Formats: sequence, C-alpha cells, structure tokens
Amino acid sequence: MTVDPVHPENLQLYDTTLRDGGQQEGIQFSVADKLKIAELVDSLGVGFIEGGWPGSNPVDTEFFARAASLELRNARLVAFGSTRRAGRRAGDDPQLRALCEAGTEWVCVVAKAHDMHVTQALHTTLDENLAMVTETVEYLIGEGKKVIVDAEHYFDGFRSNPAYALEVIRDAAEAGAQTVVLCDTNGGMLPSWMGDIVSSSASIGVELGVHCHNDSGCAVANSLAALEAGASQVQGTINGYGERTGNMDLTTLIADVQLKYGWPVVTPEQLGMLTQVSRTVAEIANQPAQLRQPFVGESAFAHKAGLHASALKVNDGLYQHVQPAAVGNDMRMLISEMAGRANIQIKGEQLGLDLSDRELAGRVADAVKQREARGYAYEAADASFELLVRRMAGTGDDAPFEVISWRVFTEQGVMPADDPDHSVAASEATVKLAAKGTRQLYVGEGNGPVNALDQALSRALSPVYPQVRQFELTDYRVRILDRGHGTDATVRVQIDTTCEEITWTTVGVGENVIEASWEALTEAYLFGLTKRYGLAR
Amino acid sequence: MTVDPVHPENLQLYDTTLRDGGQQEGIQFSVADKLKIAELVDSLGVGFIEGGWPGSNPVDTEFFARAASLELRNARLVAFGSTRRAGRRAGDDPQLRALCEAGTEWVCVVAKAHDMHVTQALHTTLDENLAMVTETVEYLIGEGKKVIVDAEHYFDGFRSNPAYALEVIRDAAEAGAQTVVLCDTNGGMLPSWMGDIVSSSASIGVELGVHCHNDSGCAVANSLAALEAGASQVQGTINGYGERTGNMDLTTLIADVQLKYGWPVVTPEQLGMLTQVSRTVAEIANQPAQLRQPFVGESAFAHKAGLHASALKVNDGLYQHVQPAAVGNDMRMLISEMAGRANIQIKGEQLGLDLSDRELAGRVADAVKQREARGYAYEAADASFELLVRRMAGTGDDAPFEVISWRVFTEQGVMPADDPDHSVAASEATVKLAAKGTRQLYVGEGNGPVNALDQALSRALSPVYPQVRQFELTDYRVRILDRGHGTDATVRVQIDTTCEEITWTTVGVGENVIEASWEALTEAYLFGLTKRYGLAR
Repeated sequence: MTVDPVHPENLQLYDTTLRDGGQQEGIQFSVADKLKIAELVDSLGVGFIEGGWPGSNPVDTEFFARAASLELRNARLVAFGSTRRAGRRAGDDPQLRALCEAGTEWVCVVAKAHDMHVTQALHTTLDENLAMVTETVEYLIGEGKKVIVDAEHYFDGFRSNPAYALEVIRDAAEAGAQTVVLCDTNGGMLPSWMGDIVSSSASIGVELGVHCHNDSGCAVANSLAALEAGASQVQGTINGYGERTGNMDLTTLIADVQLKYGWPVVTPEQLGMLTQVSRTVAEIANQPAQLRQPFVGESAFAHKAGLHASALKVNDGLYQHVQPAAVGNDMRMLISEMAGRANIQIKGEQLGLDLSDRELAGRVADAVKQREARGYAYEAADASFELLVRRMAGTGDDAPFEVISWRVFTEQGVMPADDPDHSVAASEATVKLAAKGTRQLYVGEGNGPVNALDQALSRALSPVYPQVRQFELTDYRVRILDRGHGTDATVRVQIDTTCEEITWTTVGVGENVIEASWEALTEAYLFGLTKRYGLAR
Repeated sequence: MTVDPVHPENLQLYDTTLRDGGQQEGIQFSVADKLKIAELVDSLGVGFIEGGWPGSNPVDTEFFARAASLELRNARLVAFGSTRRAGRRAGDDPQLRALCEAGTEWVCVVAKAHDMHVTQALHTTLDENLAMVTETVEYLIGEGKKVIVDAEHYFDGFRSNPAYALEVIRDAAEAGAQTVVLCDTNGGMLPSWMGDIVSSSASIGVELGVHCHNDSGCAVANSLAALEAGASQVQGTINGYGERTGNMDLTTLIADVQLKYGWPVVTPEQLGMLTQVSRTVAEIANQPAQLRQPFVGESAFAHKAGLHASALKVNDGLYQHVQPAAVGNDMRMLISEMAGRANIQIKGEQLGLDLSDRELAGRVADAVKQREARGYAYEAADASFELLVRRMAGTGDDAPFEVISWRVFTEQGVMPADDPDHSVAASEATVKLAAKGTRQLYVGEGNGPVNALDQALSRALSPVYPQVRQFELTDYRVRILDRGHGTDATVRVQIDTTCEEITWTTVGVGENVIEASWEALTEAYLFGLTKRYGLAR
C-alpha cells in the first residue's frame, strides 16, 4: 500500500530555464543573466542545462561563446535546435551548422511527433518528417555530438495517431539518439494519461525523458507519473518559468523526488540550496516572488491559524510535511488580525523581544489588528513590528530624532511632443528634524521623490549619527491596496535597508505614496539607529 | 489506453475560499468581501460554500447572520466547526452551539484522524477522540443538521496507523455523516499515494470527499486521483488561496474535470464565467493576479515564441490545449523583443491597425525591442503600443495637446513622534499645456502626487476637450524593475483608464516614479482623445 516507485538507475535532471523559461511573458534574459543562472542551476546538482537556441537570436549565440569559460561542476551544457528543414540536406542547414558551432558536446533537437503538426505547421509529408529526424540525428552524431531528441506534441500526437508518434521516436532511437524526450508541449495532459502513454512507449528501448507544461495544473504530477512509468530524464525550469502557464517547476520536483520518494538525486547540501537558488533566479529574471510556491516560497512554511500555531509549539512536524531546513527555507509565524496573544508571544520570542507580560502582549495584538485593518502588514516587516512593540512598552527613552517637517518637489521642463524620451525630471526634498538637542535642516536631490527624501534625511542625520552613512536602501516595494480606485488608492510601501550585511524591513501606509514612503523611510532609520547601534528609544 | 475515469453519480464541488482561503498570508476578508465572493462562487455552479467558523471571530459570526439574505441559486451554505471538546458533553460545548446558531442546514466538523495529533495536539486518548466524533455527529443530527466530517490529517494518519484512521471515518459514517472528507492537511501527498489510500478507504460505504493542499505541488492532481479512486466530493478554493502553499485551486479542477474528463459538472455558461470569477475574487482578496494560473491566468493563452505565432496563424488549436473562450479567457499575442515582424503584424490586426507595410512593421518591431530593453512593456499596454505605431506611421496630424511643463509638490507639516498617525500630507500639481492654439495653466490637488497631476491635467484639458471629464483612472500599478537598487531603481507604471465601460492601458518608464507616472498619464489622455473621440494625431 502506497509503495514508492523504484528509483530509475540513471535519473537525469534537465534544466531549460535559459531557453523555455525565457519564453515566459515578462522574462528577457541578457547574456550575463544566463551565465549567472547557469552557475546557480549547476550548484543544485542538475545534470543538464539547456542554454538556448544558437543562431536564433544574438543573446543565445553570445551565451554559448562565453559559456566556454563557465566552470560547471555537475551539469553538461546543451545547445538546442530543430530537425533539418524539409527538402534540405542536414549538412546544408544553417540552423544545424549554428547548433554544431555552439561547441557543446550535447545537443537537443526538437522533432514533430504529431501528424497534424507535420502537415499543418511544417507543411510537409509524414515520411519527409521521419527522414528529417533520422538524417538530423545521424548528421549530428557524425559531427561528434551526443543527441537528445525532443518529441514535440508527443502525447497529443499519441492520442491522435499512436503508430506515427511511436514511429518518430523509434526512428530517433535507431538513428542513435541517447534519449528521446516525450513532450507535452500544449500542457494539457493529466497524470493517469501520462502514465499510460509513457508505459506504452517504453518498448522502444531507448532512454525516455519527459517535458511537461502546466496548462492543466498538473506539470509536476505528470512528470512524477512519467518517472513512475519508466522515464529516466525529467525536464523543467527553475520556478516553473515558461510559455503560457509555464514549464514543470524543477524546484518542486527535486524536493518531491528526494524527500518523498527518497531517491538521492542531489546531495543534501545541494537540496539545502533550493530556496536560495529559486529566489536568486527570480531576482535575475525580475519576476515577483511566488509566495505560495511549494517548498521554496516565503509562505511555504508560514502559519497563520491559531490552531496551527499552538500545535506547532508542541511538535513542529504536526503541520509541516517536511522540515523547512532541508530545502533551505524557514518556518514563519505570521502576525495578523487572525493572530491572538499566543502568536504575538511566539513572534516576540523569535525576535528576542520580551512579551511575556500578558497585558502588553494583548495590547500589541490589538494594535496589530487595528493597524492591519488600515493596510499595514507586519507579516514581513519585522522591524516596524519591533518598533511598534518598543513604543507600546513605553520604555520612556528618548527617540534618536524627531521630524519637524518635510517636503518634496518634482518638476519637468519642456517636453517636446516629437521626442518625449529626452525630457528630464528631477526631485528635490527638504527635511527639518531635531536630534540630540540640535536642529538640522538639509536638502537632498534625487531622480525620484523618495530617493530625494532619503538623501535629505540621511544628510540631516549624518552630523549627529555618522553611522547612517552605512545604511543602504536595498529594496523599495509599492503595493496598491484598493485596486479600482485609480491614483487615490491606499498604498503600502515596504523598504529593505541593509547595513553590514544585516537587512531589515519597514512598512508605511497611506493614501499618498510619498507619505507612506516617508513613514517606511523614517522607521528604517529609527530601527537602524536603535537596534543596530543600541540607541535607546 | 488513456481511458477517462467514470463520472461519479453524485459529484459535488465544495468551496472553502471563505474559510481556508482566508488563512492565506496577506488575505483578510471583510463581511462584505465574503458576501460578494459567496455570490460569485455560486454563479459558477458550485454545490457547497463553506462560509467560515461561527463563533471563532466576529467577521464569521456576522457573515452567517447576513448570509441569510443571499439568494444562492446553486450552492448550499455550510458552517464550519470542530468536534466537541475532550471531556465535555456535545450539548454543553459553546463552539457547537455557535455552529448550530449559524442557521445553515449543512455543517462541517473537523475531526482528528491521525493518532499522533490526538495525543500531542488534542492531548486526549484515542478512544475519547472516537467518542468525540460519534457524539458530535449525533448531536448535530439531533439539532436537524446535515453533517459533513473533515477527517484532518487523514492521509498522514493512514500511513502511520491505518486501522485508527479508518476507525475514525467508520464511526463518523455510522453516526450518520452524509460525507466524510479525507484531508491532506499538510499537503504532502503524491497522486499515486492518494489513489491507493482513497481506494483502501472506499469500503466504509459512505460518500467520500477529498481536501488537498499544495505543499508537494500536486493538489489538483491529488484531487483528480481521489476522484478516479472513488471520491465524489472535492474541496478547494478559488485561485488556490489557503494556508502555506494554498489549497487545491478549484478553478483549475473544474476546467480539468469538465474539459478533459468530459464530465458535465457545471453548465457551459457557468464554465465561461471561470476567468471573470477568478479575477474578481483576486481583486476582492486584494491578491496580485497569477499570470501563469492554468486556464484563467492572463498568460494562460499568451504566445511569445515566433514558432508558435506562425503556427497559430494556421490553426489556433496547434499550441493551445483547450479553446480559451470555453473558460472565458482569450488568446493573446505578446509583443516582445523575441517577436518579429510577423507578431507585430498579427498584433496590429487584432487592434485594427494597418501594419501590412513590411517596412513600417519592421521599424515598429525594432522600436519595441529598443524600448522594451529600457523597461517598457507593451504586452499589456495596447494603448501605448497603438500610440507608438501611430507616431511611427507619421500621419502628420496634429497632437490633441502638447505639454509645456509640469511640477508637483508634496509636503507634510509637524509630525509628532508620539502620534505619527495624525499627520497629513498633501500634494499639489501645476500643469501648463497647449491645445487647439490655446495655452492652459491649471493647478490640481490630491492625496498623492500622481492624483494631483491627474487632477491638474484633467482640468487643463477640460476647457478644450470637455469629454476628458468622463475619463476615470481605474487602476495604477507600479513595478520596480531593478530590484536591489533601492529608491533609485527604474520603475514601470501602468495605468488603466475607463470611459463609458471601455478600458485602455498605458505604460510609462523612468528612474523617477513621478516621471514614469506622468508619461503613462499623458498617454492615457492622448489615447482617449485620439481613439475614443477620433481626434486625429
């Protein structure tokens, strides 16, 4: 009962973030991006990294030229292309020549496996398509390459014309392909279908791989079903980036296979890099974090319900399917309006704050509820939460500074209608504050109003607290809270500030984005001064 | 081969967006939110809507009081609670009293099915837990309720102690529960395990349901496996909202079951509401759109690769697993740096622009690539794309207006350190422009700088173009493009403007958020005047 499938002898992880991932809406990789991602994927212990389609665009061509200098420890680099054009000799096809010139030992070529696609998209005959597969594989082997064949639309093709789909992969195998990858290109498969079709294809006798998209919401499960049915290579992308609904998320699959099936596909150390690699690739791809992403998402081990919180106090396995540390993630207790005094106390312990006083903890819980109802979010803004607790504890110490007033001005001059790109806007801010009995008045300028306010605030504090020169604003996030209200909506601003490799997060809320930013900004400096430099409040 | 499973006679869709969905990080439903969501879920043809846990918090209690006035056409409302407390009579448990007082015909109670949770979290004996199940179900039936039992941690419990897990659901069935729901509370199951355990539990002889979380990335596939193994009720939430990685996404499951298995779980008209319901619930929940969400995401039928674009010209089934219109979604061609002239021409056709001139289409494609490299995104901003094409086509017409200069000022007065909540910031903007040979100088004020600029621009245009008074800014989105650069990062602003139920989107980019906003704002007015009112440029 619930027996785990047998570990394939030669399980291969194949990453296509750099090619298929780049097809996603909103993703545009530079050559430098691709080089960095290749190193990150390699550090996970993935066996193959598909780098792109040389010759199809300048970025991919340059990537392979520069990738020769990468020192990959685990992965082999793969160049991607397609079978030769219909009616042309493989040796005369410039696309295949570019593929060879990429200089990789391994290449992957896509071949049509669905009869309808051969006639309607390639506009050729079923026989010519088979010849294209055979001759392309033979040509590339003759050029000294190891060849993987992606059988495009294999599953839809199999459901429409199984004999032809099987003939395509049989011909690829007989021509000498190392692996034939069955692709669910349109992503519409379901796991039980996948298992049946992979089993029915195993008789070909070549190593089978699988390449899934997530259009039915089953990409990971489809890949697992294929592995259970005998496939030994699985393709995917970091964070599931890809065309339409995306590719199979390799981060989820690696964790499932390693932690659920118990197959040692990567080392425990490599598995422990999973969260960091996922988030760093998201930064490079400039994609928003997927909070709910399995294993690696910021919410993956975050607990809000009071029921869960109290149980987790007893045994942290009670509401978690794996140990977060195994994948480099952390458990988080969320402070929210649903949270009671117990959560506030657990959170306090994690931050090293004394909230053992039940009356104070109760007052803090009430204040959090009230402020969250107005739009504040303390779930991520630990620094603002700590400042709130310190204020409510009423230590009676002096604040490091008090703001008297501020203002900021943004102006743009002549903007010619025929060349709006050459206009320039500039912002200037004035900040007046009191600190250690002195009155400071400074002006700052910047390429935006918040930048100008930050400069002015930093300058005004520097004479009294020179340490603020080390504070650096490392991230600034704006969230519109009431969508549908246009520019007068309430906004929430979160600011990350870094000093000597420690980063803290503060939050501000208001109908005016500048006002909300100012609140988060002053909290960032207040926290930095009180916490980092031990200045009592 | 690849036979679809048999449609359960009595398949029930059960939505818990209002309870389990509200456990998600960042979601806080008001009573009004819950009432609106209940009506939306009902419009999808879902059979059960779990409204919350009466008595556990004021929102849920008030929801049930006000829900009596809802006119649900398809769904039965369910109140959620738990089995009686250990060592207490069911009739004396205030939680069960609150459950009955919610006034619903149907109630759902959660019971522990995992031996370890009984002893470690409930701190009671295995026998007392069984008595709690039986007596709670009998008490609720005595109060005239129809009872569903959620067997919490059922799958982990079954793997640890199958006899006890089965005993819990057998007792629930014998006490008279209508349905016993097997819950993968920690979300760690895989589809093959699910199928085995549901099959092994079917002998109990009561209708089985399934409740999955997505911690292994398999919530939808696990639910499908349970249906294939004999379950007849499936629980989930709209957009998969829920604790940690979220619950099973009901929007994906409905489309999979209806379009892949071919089971008529909802009407075609209800299925056609899927995208709209998903997006409206996201707005109410104030959650960012999940672009890659299967079926209903904005990218779900978006195509970027040139290969796909040319094939889709021939047959739109070639790269799409279902027809987007079936779920109320649309196919989209993405304009991006990967796009060539062909994509630009298809996009032009969709917008009714004449781009048949190959030279013009090539120049537009180049301009798009250049501008996207600087941060513009035309994928969503059709209005800015159209303005770009019109400018490049060089029709020689006059622009409706030309901006001479603008400036905006934000100021905050005394902000006492002990009460920062009572300070007020205000913004004031000045706009100078030329329109139809007149010179207009106006000032506007607002609760933020962009709001103030919008007011000033609208006032300055109104004397010449009174129709701008009907333009309404309905959404304003800010995206930081270079994370890690703090407040001097490049930002992209997108603005939605609505006039007489038509909405258009414009984009602006710059290092200064005000400048980027101003660009998107002026484009919004330019597009509205040229397109909506046919004013030539």
